[in-house]
Amino acid sequence: MQGDETREDRSGGPSPAQLDDLRADLLVDLRSVFLGRLLTSVEDVEPFVVDWRRTWRGDCLAVVQPDSPADVAAIVQWCAARLVPVVTQGGNTGLSGGATPSFGSGAVVLSTTRIRAVRHVDVVNNTITVDAGCTLAQVQEAALAAGRLFPLSLAAEGTCTIGGNLATNAGGTAVLRFGTARELCLGLEVVTASGELWDGLTGLRKDNTGYALRDLFIGSEGTLGVITGAVLKLYPLPAVREVALLAVPSLSDAVGVFQHLSAGLGQQLVACEVLNAACVQLVHANTATRSPFSVDTPWLVLVEVNSMRADQSARDELERSLAGLLDASRISDAVIASSSAQSELFWALREEVSEAQGAAGPTIKHDVAVPISLIESFVERAHTAVSSVTSDVRFVTFGHLGDGNLHYNLSPLPDGDPLAFRALQDRFNEVVHDVVRACGGSISAEHGLGVLRSVEADRYRSTTDRKLQHAVKRALDPHGIMNPGKFLPAATNH
Amino acid sequence: MQGDETREDRSGGPSPAQLDDLRADLLVDLRSVFLGRLLTSVEDVEPFVVDWRRTWRGDCLAVVQPDSPADVAAIVQWCAARLVPVVTQGGNTGLSGGATPSFGSGAVVLSTTRIRAVRHVDVVNNTITVDAGCTLAQVQEAALAAGRLFPLSLAAEGTCTIGGNLATNAGGTAVLRFGTARELCLGLEVVTASGELWDGLTGLRKDNTGYALRDLFIGSEGTLGVITGAVLKLYPLPAVREVALLAVPSLSDAVGVFQHLSAGLGQQLVACEVLNAACVQLVHANTATRSPFSVDTPWLVLVEVNSMRADQSARDELERSLAGLLDASRISDAVIASSSAQSELFWALREEVSEAQGAAGPTIKHDVAVPISLIESFVERAHTAVSSVTSDVRFVTFGHLGDGNLHYNLSPLPDGDPLAFRALQDRFNEVVHDVVRACGGSISAEHGLGVLRSVEADRYRSTTDRKLQHAVKRALDPHGIMNPGKFLPAATNH
Repeated sequence: MQGDETREDRSGGPSPAQLDDLRADLLVDLRSVFLGRLLTSVEDVEPFVVDWRRTWRGDCLAVVQPDSPADVAAIVQWCAARLVPVVTQGGNTGLSGGATPSFGSGAVVLSTTRIRAVRHVDVVNNTITVDAGCTLAQVQEAALAAGRLFPLSLAAEGTCTIGGNLATNAGGTAVLRFGTARELCLGLEVVTASGELWDGLTGLRKDNTGYALRDLFIGSEGTLGVITGAVLKLYPLPAVREVALLAVPSLSDAVGVFQHLSAGLGQQLVACEVLNAACVQLVHANTATRSPFSVDTPWLVLVEVNSMRADQSARDELERSLAGLLDASRISDAVIASSSAQSELFWALREEVSEAQGAAGPTIKHDVAVPISLIESFVERAHTAVSSVTSDVRFVTFGHLGDGNLHYNLSPLPDGDPLAFRALQDRFNEVVHDVVRACGGSISAEHGLGVLRSVEADRYRSTTDRKLQHAVKRALDPHGIMNPGKFLPAATNH
Repeated sequence: MQGDETREDRSGGPSPAQLDDLRADLLVDLRSVFLGRLLTSVEDVEPFVVDWRRTWRGDCLAVVQPDSPADVAAIVQWCAARLVPVVTQGGNTGLSGGATPSFGSGAVVLSTTRIRAVRHVDVVNNTITVDAGCTLAQVQEAALAAGRLFPLSLAAEGTCTIGGNLATNAGGTAVLRFGTARELCLGLEVVTASGELWDGLTGLRKDNTGYALRDLFIGSEGTLGVITGAVLKLYPLPAVREVALLAVPSLSDAVGVFQHLSAGLGQQLVACEVLNAACVQLVHANTATRSPFSVDTPWLVLVEVNSMRADQSARDELERSLAGLLDASRISDAVIASSSAQSELFWALREEVSEAQGAAGPTIKHDVAVPISLIESFVERAHTAVSSVTSDVRFVTFGHLGDGNLHYNLSPLPDGDPLAFRALQDRFNEVVHDVVRACGGSISAEHGLGVLRSVEADRYRSTTDRKLQHAVKRALDPHGIMNPGKFLPAATNH
């Protein structure tokens, strides 16, 4: 019961005097071990207490930069003994504030970016064993150097860490074919909330000798433990990549296109992305990238096909499939990239939407997933719901069609009032997420809950689900020191 | 604390008088609702207290046959209120005793076989929603009727239930391409240990709004809750299936064959199975099935390739790949099945090994997984270790090469002493599993722990892993009523 009382005592966070005492203890206990890697001054900790988009800001007792899993264990043990919160941070590229410490919580920020060795590549087992602080790009490059593909890919890959990708179960552009970070992970190494090192670093495709602890840590956003290493799946490198951009009359046709291609091409279809006219217009207005079609084309679909055959067969087959779609009037036009440079340009059109939207003014983001069969119905109902809030709105709808994952974003009209628009954010979230739930969908498909969605997610939970979620949290982090206030709302953490 | 005391009180199980009282209560409380579906006589419960191979036998307070998830909730609530153990049983085809009640525990056996509706098929979302008591074959057939593939496939598919497949995270013959039961499941419906219905029946490819409860229930063998329904992934039906049988000089060559085919054929390679000469000899001696090669061929590899293209291309490509393997002397001979009947014959050779071995005398089974890069080293070291126990042994080695999953079985020599051989079972297990662990492998790849492997699995755990496993159990089943003594050993359940 001591843990509970202590937690109660600092419900408003420790006092300034308590923080000073803790910081002095920390320096005495850990400075000799973490020389130059224990940051406490306001200037030194600054990059770690603000997220990269500067949406969230907090403060901390200190930032510690461990060099090894054993270092991480030592830090968590120190924190556990004093009930000091631990906020784990990788590349600090998250979109939901999950890695930013809260104000006044007196947390230690544990930065994993110095734990960054590629430990082992096994080309026969098709696995790579890496430290959690490796950037995603570093993992991709190590795989490539061994003649293998690590297929997880997303915009922040040069900066984000694989530990963060796993902690948030990241998605990205190849989920359709290879799954999310969860499905790419075979084994994990984790420092538990009591500071013990759990070695689950297996490279096995099959293992039924215990509860799925790996899956519990994946996607838990640092609230159950600190991921320090992982064994990841590798794949053979494809011999051929074909990318095509399709002009599509309606969202219903886009879903039909996905069905047709997925039935015809099977697992050769690696990506199937969608964007509406507003996305293309924003990219045209704010970047140098151009669509090969009219900017008024209602919807674009981008597909990528990979093949192990170093010949024309994948291209021939894609051409045949697209001809069928043209005949059926499911698409009005199509271009297959004639070079890898053109492939990159097609992908740029899709990937620059976020930035272009940001450049054009305030953005309200929704990262939702629904069953693919309900995508059209979701968009229709959400448009109606949003339009009932205001008519000053531009629907910027794009995402991973093949995963049922839409970035259902909203902008004010070009001549609209940005401040009035932003003031409607909570109302927009509510009406959009109510439609998501009515469709049996998810209000956080690939961006995590962090602080951005934790309260909302909790509001949509059943009582039974809430009980189970908190039972898991209490079981693995009984004193509530791991990233408190994130993922599950603080108010019901106990 | 009441729960703990009660559990202690009946550590040796309830007394006969207590059992009589409980049974009387059960009949009063539930007979009207479960008329004809509440079995208590020795004859009626007999099929439910013995596993199908008659390896394990127990007894029970009663067998209840719920018709719906709500029925399951009512039964678990009744049991939870009285701390009566609940043993969930599907098709009763398990290989590890996980669904057989223990003697004297006074358990209620909850048989799911009457909860067997296919609830919904969504061909656009490529999902099927089913009751847990559907047989695996029933799910496959419902998928086929909708023009889709549900790829989980294993010998017991006509009898085993999908709920049991999920509770044990079943593997089977298409894991290489489609993953285990876990990877084929998007959503679950579960009755918790307190008898609440948890609705996690989502058909979403992406959802990061909570801890991975689905993955926790999958593979937990009924020790955390009762699975009552599931949403499963469907796939397009392949247009072409090619099956080939290859004669291979050594296990090292077999691994090379798998690497070569997997690099060349990518995800078209659906299965890559292996069997040694002893397997073929047993099948020849005990069944009508014949190998196309000499029975002395050291190793056979069976491969299946699926293609979405209704043409010769998959066969052409397979032929090219095999020609390359012949040139490199990785294989000494190869036959591609010329008809679906011949494909079935090739598969029969692989699938009849288990039965043929059983017909030839006592069998010591090991269901192990190791990294594919260590398969050869594992088999060498295990052979040495087993040979140090006795020279009266025949190595019957077969399994899912592409998953690193071997059924590393042992038989006595034809003129050996079966009883003396069987007496060595614990010793065989110990030396084989020690080698498995030294290779970073798993002692239970796809058959679950049940009562067969629960104590051994626990012996190989680290202290940290044991703590975490039991923390999860206590969190979701605080009174230890769900399938006690299975999966985690009873002695450390508390």
